[in-house]
Amino acid sequence: MIEVIPIGHIRSGCTDLEQLPPQSLHNIDATGSVVVRADLVDALLGLDRYEYIWLLTWLHAGAIESQPAPLQLVPRATEAAGEVQGVFASRAPQRPNPIGLSLVSNRGVHGNVVEFAGVDLLDGTPVLDIKPWFVDADEPSR
Amino acid sequence: MIEVIPIGHIRSGCTDLEQLPPQSLHNIDATGSVVVRADLVDALLGLDRYEYIWLLTWLHAGAIESQPAPLQLVPRATEAAGEVQGVFASRAPQRPNPIGLSLVSNRGVHGNVVEFAGVDLLDGTPVLDIKPWFVDADEPSR
Repeated sequence: MIEVIPIGHIRSGCTDLEQLPPQSLHNIDATGSVVVRADLVDALLGLDRYEYIWLLTWLHAGAIESQPAPLQLVPRATEAAGEVQGVFASRAPQRPNPIGLSLVSNRGVHGNVVEFAGVDLLDGTPVLDIKPWFVDADEPSR
Repeated sequence: MIEVIPIGHIRSGCTDLEQLPPQSLHNIDATGSVVVRADLVDALLGLDRYEYIWLLTWLHAGAIESQPAPLQLVPRATEAAGEVQGVFASRAPQRPNPIGLSLVSNRGVHGNVVEFAGVDLLDGTPVLDIKPWFVDADEPSR
């Protein structure tokens, strides 16, 4: 058992799962922010130089809806069309550890608040980590 | 406080942090596997159709070395050269929640074992989640 303490939470103004797009960059016109814990503000130094950042989150709402998490489901239509998939072959929020991975556009860091565009997260979602997006780490070599 | 139970662990044959490259795709000739818990094997259905997958891991070794996690450090030379950065502006394993994000090349699923190429993880590293890499979710739009 591993214990994880959120580093902050999402402020997105979105309280309805049905309003959310399947992926953050499908909703680039919507902006939100990460309110980082005040004791961690020093960990944000230099983040503003990155155009895109990853938000690792705890998808509490999806997790609460489906306990225990299903092992298989029919993902949204943007994934393999209409077929039953294992949850590890899906980005569905219902999974054994409902950790969300959202690529968002960085719109600036102000104190302990990280502004971003591209919202696929509910208001209040716990944030577990923030990382810069790096082309050499995060893009397949083709 | 959130409780996370690993879904499996890494088998990489690598026991020395110093041998590891900073990012998985820098080490594409090295292969490893995820040994998924037997009770979760059904969650792997359909994963073999994806060329690249994300491994979300718990970077226990880096975490143990630096307790409590630093908030700032000088990341490896592949990141912003030699300057002190906040850990959230870095991919360093020492961070408040040491969750690793590794993009690896999928080499096939056999029972509860996922074979991959591109190793930046120590043998025995706990795995928290597996997700397919999707171009429309994981690549900035340019």
